[in-house]
Order: sequence, then C-alpha cells, then structure tokens
Amino acid sequence: MPPGPGIIVGVGDDAAVLATPDSRVVATMDLLVEGRHFRRDWSGPVEIGGKAAAQSLADVAAMGAAPIALLVGLAAPRDLPIVWAEDLATGLAQECARAGASVAGGDISEAASITLAVTALGDLAGGAPVTRAGARPGDLVAVAGSLGHSAAGLALLRAGLSEPASLLAAHRWPRPPYDAGPEAARLGATSMIDISDGLGQDLGHVAAASGVLIDIDSARLGPDEALRAAAGTLGGTDPLDWVLAGGEDHALAATFPPDTDLPERWVLIGRVGEGSGVRLDSRASERVSGWNHFR
Amino acid sequence: MPPGPGIIVGVGDDAAVLATPDSRVVATMDLLVEGRHFRRDWSGPVEIGGKAAAQSLADVAAMGAAPIALLVGLAAPRDLPIVWAEDLATGLAQECARAGASVAGGDISEAASITLAVTALGDLAGGAPVTRAGARPGDLVAVAGSLGHSAAGLALLRAGLSEPASLLAAHRWPRPPYDAGPEAARLGATSMIDISDGLGQDLGHVAAASGVLIDIDSARLGPDEALRAAAGTLGGTDPLDWVLAGGEDHALAATFPPDTDLPERWVLIGRVGEGSGVRLDSRASERVSGWNHFR
Repeated sequence: MPPGPGIIVGVGDDAAVLATPDSRVVATMDLLVEGRHFRRDWSGPVEIGGKAAAQSLADVAAMGAAPIALLVGLAAPRDLPIVWAEDLATGLAQECARAGASVAGGDISEAASITLAVTALGDLAGGAPVTRAGARPGDLVAVAGSLGHSAAGLALLRAGLSEPASLLAAHRWPRPPYDAGPEAARLGATSMIDISDGLGQDLGHVAAASGVLIDIDSARLGPDEALRAAAGTLGGTDPLDWVLAGGEDHALAATFPPDTDLPERWVLIGRVGEGSGVRLDSRASERVSGWNHFR
Repeated sequence: MPPGPGIIVGVGDDAAVLATPDSRVVATMDLLVEGRHFRRDWSGPVEIGGKAAAQSLADVAAMGAAPIALLVGLAAPRDLPIVWAEDLATGLAQECARAGASVAGGDISEAASITLAVTALGDLAGGAPVTRAGARPGDLVAVAGSLGHSAAGLALLRAGLSEPASLLAAHRWPRPPYDAGPEAARLGATSMIDISDGLGQDLGHVAAASGVLIDIDSARLGPDEALRAAAGTLGGTDPLDWVLAGGEDHALAATFPPDTDLPERWVLIGRVGEGSGVRLDSRASERVSGWNHFR
C-alpha cells in the first residue's frame, strides 16, 4: 500500500506519522466481526475491505472533516488464504482512495475468526468540528447519501434473492458521500451524524445530545424505485421502514440554520423543534425508534 | 473515562477530536487476542487493560513522541461480566495516566472471544520522528527499560509457579519507560524501536531498515537477580536467553551518535557496524535471531 499525501512515515515502523496541518486530528475506531457485521458467504474480501473502510471514514466525515488515513488491524485464522487478505487490502485501499485517504499502518494477529479493527483519522481544515450536540429548534434536518439500501440488500440476501443487484451491492459495500461532511460544516451545520444504526435511531442520538425534538416528514423520504421493487419481491415489507430504520448505508444526517440554502444532495427531511426524541409526521412512532438487524 | 488534556471532543460522538499542536500526529494500532496475547486465568482484567494500553503507547514512545490518547475497540462475548469490562477500562485508564494520555474513544461489539484493538496517538513536540532507519556505523546501541522479565514471568506461569512475583507482574502488565522515548529523540537518537518481539529480533529490524550491522555485547546484559532466581527455580534455562529473545517488556532500544553522553537509564549494550544483521559478541548466533512465545 503506497503512502498517500500527508503520510510522513507510513507502514513498517513502530508507528505512522501523519501531517495534521490544522493542529487538530479527528480520530475514530470501528470493529467488524465476522458473522455479526459480515459473512464470507455473502460478501467477497474486496467488498468487506471496502465496507470496513467506509464505516470508519464516514465517522470522520460526520465530524465535518476530510479523511487522511486508516490504521487497520486484522485478526484472522491461520488458514485464511493469502489471496483473501490481499483482496481485503485492495478493498480497503480502493475505498480510502475514494475518500482521499490511504492506509498508514496497522497490525495482524492469529485468531479463531476474523475481526477487523479500523481507525480512521481526519483533518478539519480550520473548521469547527460538527458534533451531535448543536441542533437548535427551527433548524432544518437534511440527509446526504442513500437510506435503506443496505437494509433492503440484507433482506434480499437473507431470502436468497439477488435482485435488485444495486441493493445487494449497497449492503456489501456502502459508499458514503464523504465530501458532504466538510461541505455541511462549511454551510454552518449545527449538528451531524453518520447513519449507521438507522435514521430514526441516529437522529435520536442528535436529539438527545442537543436537547431538542426532531420531526421527520415521511413524505420527503419516498422510497426509490429499487426499494419499492425489493419490497414487492419480498412481500409484506413497507419499504419506508428500510429508510427509517435500516442502518449501514452511512449516509450523513445534519441540521442546518433555517435560512440555509441547501445544495441539491442535501435532501430536506424534517425540522428541529422544542422537546425531546424523534417524531414521524409530528407523532410518536415505533418506526423511528430504531432496530439493529444483527441484534 | 474523563477526557484528558488535549481532548477537544471525547467519547460519545462519531469521532474524537484531539489537539495536535505540532501539526503532525503519531499513530499506531495493536491487537490483543485472548489465548494468544493473554489468558483470563493468568491475568486479571485490570492487568489485561494495562498491558493493552502499554503495548500501543510504547510504540508511540519509540517514535520519540509523547502519547496523547487511545482509541479502544473491545469485541467480547455477550456473557462477559460487566465488572470485567469495567476493570479492563480501569487498567487502560491507569496505564494511560502513567503515559500522560487518556482514552478518547473506541467501539464495542459482540464476538465469540475477546479481542482488543488499541490505537495510540502521540505528539512529537517539534522533534523529528525517530524511525528504525537512521542507525549509522559507529553509533552506540542502548536500551531503556527491563529485558526478559515478561518472558521469564510467562515461563513461570506455564510451570505453575508464582515466584519471583515481580516477573509474573512484568508479564501481566509491562511498564514501558515512556518518557525515555522523547528523551532519546532530544539526545539525537539515530534510530529507535520498541522491544516487543525480543531484543535480537527487534534490533534485526533496525539493522535491516538502516542497512547496518548491530553487535550486542553480552557482558553488558547480565541477567539481574530476579531472572537468575527464576532460571534457578525452573532449571535448564540460561536467563540470558530471556534477555536476548524475550519480548513484551516493551523496553526501548535506540542508537545514538558515538559521542552521546547517555543518561543513566539508557544502558549501553552494543555498537553499530558496517554490514548486516545482529551479532552477539561479534559472532553470528541463534540466540539473537528471535523467537515468539505464542508462535
């Protein structure tokens, strides 16, 4: 893995050294455990590497920062084929490149099953970090990136189905809109979060941290053609539930001052109000209280 | 875990934000896998947390940097007692405090067995990073910290013995001399490494990266009283082998220009010469080619 820009010392020493010209660094770690976060019979190693990178890089973007580098820990069985690990590295490197980052270090160890630990580091480029705690009554609530595609793809995989292929791909390798994070910061976003657990549940974290109520307008979340097709194939599923409660697409949700002129990719989905919790169309609803498909 | 100095955003958001006034950050990740790096019947959770922190913090020190923060990933079985995880956190926090750092974030996940992933971040305070690649013929080779104590402690545990207690403690919770890392950098160290695999093997990494020969003087490595006592108890062991090939004490080894006035804790153990590899008393020796007690 060739060192990217900003990597002063890369793979192969006791530690990496990275440039942080902003004099601050954004840092996050995520774990991916085989059987819980991925299955080798449902996803290939390139996809698993891509998803592992995306999960952590999206957390950096959700602070309003641009990703710089990843550190990757791989614990794996002794009989793991070398080509599987090489393909995993390919996926990690490809998703890093998409985010403008590179792999700067990590560790390997033998273990009974595969666990990936991914640390992502990022640069705020002079801006203030956008936390979960700044939403104010009257703010706009908007989302960049897709919602519900990963959850629909997982439902299709569980049913043994392979169409629509775009949804299976979204589950195997989500593609977060990284540059929407710094863009939101520049637009004055008052809070931001990476949608990893589900829109309702993650907006609940924002509502709690900010001490506000968030009201989602369901009419603005219209499930797209692919989600409607998947719901039709599977039967008995309202595709809006994938949008409201499905995680792992790693879309970004943010709140903005009321007069913000939102760029096209930031889709308005609701409003911040006085109170607490998350409502759907001004009513309490279990559809936005969250679920996690592996729990 | 209260945020320490330099933590701008701590635990509880998508990512942490840390001050890096030097405009560079040192970053490393290590994995600890149950059964491979620790055993719950041989070490308590406070010790395992302390050891996990020490392992990564020592890598930061070995670059000449002062540790700032840790990110900690814990994958563990659903039935892990809460008190075990709390005690693990206590050990992590205690070792962080010893190094002047704090825990700034992390992740948890369910898994079949315990895996810890620890990322440590550090600050170079204006100095150049000390890599493995700068040793020059004529340089002094010196070590700060203890050697062989962890390996001797492991041998005692394997034999079901409990004395000398200091060696068992050294295996369960090594105490790297963190501030010796920045000290070596200020003294002009030309290369440095954390002794994690064994003195001979790790100096081999320095020799290879620097394109030099390292000659260790065995007379300067005299095993101390505790090591000689343990070897006497176990029988059939030359305690010098623990010093030469035992890892996990996380002592620091560094090379210095020939005229360096070494502080007392940096013990001169050899010289850098022209050539390649590591020699013992000017001869090739399997005793410095390295072993790993879990492989």
